[in-house]
Amino acid sequence: MKRIFLLALAIALISCNDQKLTSINVSNIDELQSAIDDSKAGDVITMKNGIWKDAQIKFHGMGTEQKPIVLKAETPGEVILEGQSFLKLSGEYLVAKDLYFKNGYTPDEAVIIFRNSPDSIAFNCRVTGTVIEEFTQPDRHRKDHWIEFYGKHNELDHSYIAGKSNEGPTLKVYLNGNEHVNNYHKIHDNHFGPRPRKGGPKAETMQLGASTTSMTPSYTQVTNNLFEKCNGEVEIISSKSNFNNFSNNVFLESEGSVVTRHGNYATISGNIFIGNDNPYVGGIRVINTGHVVTNNYFYKMRGTEFRSGLAVMNGIPKSPLNRYNQVTDVVIAHNSWIDCEQPIHFSVGVNTDQAEVLPPSEIRSARPKRVIFANNLVYNDRFTSYPIKAYDKIDGVKFKNNLLLSNKNMDSDREDFTLKSISNTLGDELFYTPAQYDGKLYDGYGFNDIDVDLFGKSRNQDQNYIGAIIPPVSDKKATVDYSIYGAKWFTPSTGNKDIKTHTVTNASEFMAAIKDANSEDILSLKEGTYLIDETITLAKELKITSANKDARATIQFDNLKTAFLMQPKGILHLENLNILGTADQDFFRTEDKDMSKAYGIHLNDISVENFKSVLDASKSSFADEIIVNNSTFKNCINGFLLDKEIDDKGDYNVEFLTITKSNFDNISNEVIDFYRGGYDESTIGGILNLSGNTFTNSGKLDKDEILINTRGIVNVTFENNTFTNNDTKFTAVLWGAKGQQPVNNTVTNSGEIKVVENIELKLVY
Amino acid sequence: MKRIFLLALAIALISCNDQKLTSINVSNIDELQSAIDDSKAGDVITMKNGIWKDAQIKFHGMGTEQKPIVLKAETPGEVILEGQSFLKLSGEYLVAKDLYFKNGYTPDEAVIIFRNSPDSIAFNCRVTGTVIEEFTQPDRHRKDHWIEFYGKHNELDHSYIAGKSNEGPTLKVYLNGNEHVNNYHKIHDNHFGPRPRKGGPKAETMQLGASTTSMTPSYTQVTNNLFEKCNGEVEIISSKSNFNNFSNNVFLESEGSVVTRHGNYATISGNIFIGNDNPYVGGIRVINTGHVVTNNYFYKMRGTEFRSGLAVMNGIPKSPLNRYNQVTDVVIAHNSWIDCEQPIHFSVGVNTDQAEVLPPSEIRSARPKRVIFANNLVYNDRFTSYPIKAYDKIDGVKFKNNLLLSNKNMDSDREDFTLKSISNTLGDELFYTPAQYDGKLYDGYGFNDIDVDLFGKSRNQDQNYIGAIIPPVSDKKATVDYSIYGAKWFTPSTGNKDIKTHTVTNASEFMAAIKDANSEDILSLKEGTYLIDETITLAKELKITSANKDARATIQFDNLKTAFLMQPKGILHLENLNILGTADQDFFRTEDKDMSKAYGIHLNDISVENFKSVLDASKSSFADEIIVNNSTFKNCINGFLLDKEIDDKGDYNVEFLTITKSNFDNISNEVIDFYRGGYDESTIGGILNLSGNTFTNSGKLDKDEILINTRGIVNVTFENNTFTNNDTKFTAVLWGAKGQQPVNNTVTNSGEIKVVENIELKLVY
Repeated sequence: MKRIFLLALAIALISCNDQKLTSINVSNIDELQSAIDDSKAGDVITMKNGIWKDAQIKFHGMGTEQKPIVLKAETPGEVILEGQSFLKLSGEYLVAKDLYFKNGYTPDEAVIIFRNSPDSIAFNCRVTGTVIEEFTQPDRHRKDHWIEFYGKHNELDHSYIAGKSNEGPTLKVYLNGNEHVNNYHKIHDNHFGPRPRKGGPKAETMQLGASTTSMTPSYTQVTNNLFEKCNGEVEIISSKSNFNNFSNNVFLESEGSVVTRHGNYATISGNIFIGNDNPYVGGIRVINTGHVVTNNYFYKMRGTEFRSGLAVMNGIPKSPLNRYNQVTDVVIAHNSWIDCEQPIHFSVGVNTDQAEVLPPSEIRSARPKRVIFANNLVYNDRFTSYPIKAYDKIDGVKFKNNLLLSNKNMDSDREDFTLKSISNTLGDELFYTPAQYDGKLYDGYGFNDIDVDLFGKSRNQDQNYIGAIIPPVSDKKATVDYSIYGAKWFTPSTGNKDIKTHTVTNASEFMAAIKDANSEDILSLKEGTYLIDETITLAKELKITSANKDARATIQFDNLKTAFLMQPKGILHLENLNILGTADQDFFRTEDKDMSKAYGIHLNDISVENFKSVLDASKSSFADEIIVNNSTFKNCINGFLLDKEIDDKGDYNVEFLTITKSNFDNISNEVIDFYRGGYDESTIGGILNLSGNTFTNSGKLDKDEILINTRGIVNVTFENNTFTNNDTKFTAVLWGAKGQQPVNNTVTNSGEIKVVENIELKLVY
Repeated sequence: MKRIFLLALAIALISCNDQKLTSINVSNIDELQSAIDDSKAGDVITMKNGIWKDAQIKFHGMGTEQKPIVLKAETPGEVILEGQSFLKLSGEYLVAKDLYFKNGYTPDEAVIIFRNSPDSIAFNCRVTGTVIEEFTQPDRHRKDHWIEFYGKHNELDHSYIAGKSNEGPTLKVYLNGNEHVNNYHKIHDNHFGPRPRKGGPKAETMQLGASTTSMTPSYTQVTNNLFEKCNGEVEIISSKSNFNNFSNNVFLESEGSVVTRHGNYATISGNIFIGNDNPYVGGIRVINTGHVVTNNYFYKMRGTEFRSGLAVMNGIPKSPLNRYNQVTDVVIAHNSWIDCEQPIHFSVGVNTDQAEVLPPSEIRSARPKRVIFANNLVYNDRFTSYPIKAYDKIDGVKFKNNLLLSNKNMDSDREDFTLKSISNTLGDELFYTPAQYDGKLYDGYGFNDIDVDLFGKSRNQDQNYIGAIIPPVSDKKATVDYSIYGAKWFTPSTGNKDIKTHTVTNASEFMAAIKDANSEDILSLKEGTYLIDETITLAKELKITSANKDARATIQFDNLKTAFLMQPKGILHLENLNILGTADQDFFRTEDKDMSKAYGIHLNDISVENFKSVLDASKSSFADEIIVNNSTFKNCINGFLLDKEIDDKGDYNVEFLTITKSNFDNISNEVIDFYRGGYDESTIGGILNLSGNTFTNSGKLDKDEILINTRGIVNVTFENNTFTNNDTKFTAVLWGAKGQQPVNNTVTNSGEIKVVENIELKLVY
């Protein structure tokens, strides 16, 4: 009797589920919208495989926890949203899954928005298994986001997001309005793939709130994500609200940091930062109050100041809402820094010496206070630098039971770290943990809450350990496992697997090969002169080189405004070539508009003669790298003009400009004009390396009277150059406060190399 | 067998309890401290009745929730802590009860401190049934607090706290350090009795945090307290942290407001504000984000601007940490304003017109935003003023379903309130509620949480109602029941119940009566001349008058520096008298130091002649009232010198200076010098009423060249005065921005009455 009843109940439950669940297949936007309009809890709407162009989906419905309304692709990844597409969600318990956004951009404020309007907001809605790939605005100064969170309890998981080049954080959480606070959004198991350097601010991968919500409880959960090469700007994650949780994420070679920019009481725990010796990769930057930074693991970090492994900033006394509050009541415990060069920086951002160029409301003189730094481990046998650098007195930090392991000659008479020599290590290459540890740990207020290690192993009394990891480390933890992040169905492209070399002997073969070549292919030019009378536009990566290094080909450009017109993603390598132009044309230009993605120029062992400009970059164009080596430039009006971002909002036209062992002769105007305007610290800030070059007979038409003009550029290396008979007042004006100094240059009958300590910049904020 | 076992267990439990509970009687501080040092969970330490002088109690112990350690008075209220006494608590689960602090002051930073040192803090400790009465510092500029909360889960209840005259909030909650946040302190069922006007800032009754902890979660619970005449300054409660709860309190004739000064997400609910037409009584002043203001009841409020029944302020864009953030995301719902004159003020504090005298970081131009104002009720048939006053555009407030009941002629074409005429009311005088209500209420986001009314009655769908109260109101709710607040054993003194008149006929009787009289007694002087050759010091309230109004006595002061030397709490009424002095003496002076409490002077129908000064007040002295009517002052060097608080920190020497229908002739220097320096809005700000007086032949020695000098005084009434033949450049310089205007004065051969719009003041913050 009892058994029969149970069976009947089971059947009833199954049929009950069956009855209410409706599956609707849709093949165009009208059918889709109509299915959405009619949807009820438990419905599954399936989008037919194929390209959905300009799909502007307004997904609104009222599902339930047990019976969400699901919108999904027929086959994961085979529903492709192209053109001007977006997905908006509002209502309750909706799930959108397995969609693929590419070849387009949103016409709205974002690609995925957790609301349909200010009055129609999403609660308990989820986007999963979705890919947004290079869905970037044509104009990189047109601001958007890719995911906008509103409402509460929404979720983004198992998705792959990469390739945003335009202005605006990739993901933004909005908190304006009581409907959006205490949101407990979950962002987990995603793969945030490469976000290119933007060359200006407003390129975070994630921003949670704004300075105006720095007092607002958010409780957003960012856990178990992989952030790979998120290089947009100095902040990978900008936390601007309270009680957010950033735990168990991997930050792989990402040129930025997790920053508690505004807001307080963040948990930053169990994250892995892998720097691999890239000096622009950062770790955690701490501002404000009450954060807990525990169990984090830092590997081969080389960043400094804002980009150091751990940066604890100075604040501004009585800071304005949008600037820097003092760091107080922060716990930094059980972290490990392995093979890092001086990764811990205190009082970062102190700028009391810039009082003459900044208003008092910008002066960061308030040192960290009531900070506890305990049970941390530094293992370093690669560098002699002491692990801590302080830019001000460290009088507000309590150091307890920290261990420094090194065989290098270091200061052992300090209270912050106890120095011990290395005897042996446990674990594998990435996650090794030192064997030395004497068992004493500091037990501060609230330390009971640090109850597990980086990998979740219990920190009970029997097995607690200094640093982030309790040994031994299991083997499977020892590499970054890409397979657990992002959309299961998606594997990011890894480039051309079959690079071809196209050998050409004349201009028409050359032009044909340019068109036919796949990205990353090589054009090999037989000796001879190639007369080119059309502009070469380039939106892929090519290498053009002489077939025989000792029998160089000459390319003669004629009757053109432009020789090479660089388009988004155009990357050109020229090697072992002679290039001739005319006085009316530019060697390189960029498209005037829609330079949506970065371009690049690599010149090695070429000679260039008789152009108007070597490069004349447009506003909004951005080159990631312009690398020139062992080349000659002669009889041109201008050299490299990278000076169009004059809005003074922190933007600039190239990230790395490297010119080495090259000769410039008779460049009548400026040889380099590389400009960044506006007081902003969000970016690497432009990097010029000018080393081992000669400059002669140049600058005579230069109105600015600076031969190498680098105003506002943050990083300038200026060494071993020779300047002879150049007709400008200044050869260069360097920025002393940024550490710029001329080294070993020879200046003869040329302008002065001047160093000014501070330059006045317009405030961006 | 089973029964026997249970019985055995019960016996075991009882004996177990008996064994551990120890009662220790102590009769001096050494015994007490020793008992404390030896104490264990469950101990009760009983202090012997009597006066404990200089009792500096350091109560430290580890009780448990079930077995706290108790420190108590033998008889409640009969253990009196006098002199330089304090009580510090640290450890866990301690209870201190029934103590009485009076006749002294703390030598430490506070009277009751929930820690013994920065490393020894209280958790789950309680002070109950305790009285702190006039335990105020001798020097009112010496700062202290009376109760300092540290740690978490501490409690102050059923206590009476009154009479703090010196600088510093009465009760302060500290939040610096993670040991003190999320504290959930409970402050309930207390009677915060009168706190006198301070005449300067830093006189809150309660301050929870500081601007530096405005981002900090506090969760302090302030519930069911009575605040009576808490007049210290403009803030009764200054909330400077997050998530505090102020509910079900009564604010009775308290000249200040509950202010969300810094910090956010306060709950202010179910409070009763009784103004009784005092224009300095305030209600709730809203700054910052996320507050919920519901179910509050306001009765006969007359305050304006900072002191209005509900003041919603403008903020400073990107405000500095210690100034004014914008108001956003605030819910104001189900409140009732009954018989109030225009009690709702928006954009209070807008000061864009003062840009010339204030820096940009002081300009409050950011209007309230995302504020919901719904289901509120105004009942007003006493005034014609519309209930809302706005100092700026109200474009960020959503008004929904508010009801205005009035039979006066009012604007009915507005969206904020629906106007209806009054037909009848329900309930009694204090808590009546209008009968008219059409049943429609706004149901905004989160409104489900407003689930009860002011008295805790459920707001279920059947009986929800507009405003704070769902009728009917039970009879017992209809008065303020003093008996439920404060220490059960204590009744505040209500003054002299047996006022005596001492009739005197000569100087020696007069001096004897001065000494013998009880406070509030009357000295009645028979006709004649009383030659007094000693200074009369006064620390009580006395009235001195002629026995026969038509046969006035004359008091002749001789060979003295000072006629009346006012001491703390000295209040003198002089009526129907002639007073003669000499050119070297002052009529009134105050003690040079230890003017711990306010004094007062009331002069009615007297003539005063031949003094150096009428009043020369010392620095740090403070008069609550100086009231002069129908009197004559002749041949003096100075009039009223109330100009000693020159530190420019917002302090001043008298609150109310009222001079009416009086004559001043041949006052060679200034007639009035009444000074307040420093930009501060914490205080009433000094009030001068100068009406119907005549001033002749005065001011000829005045260096300032202002006859009536009121620099920095906020409230000046200046009307119907006659100035004839006075030798100063200005008769007065009034402050236009504060609404000061001369009205109907006659100025003949005297200085100009000038009005300046803005005056420059030193920033206090």
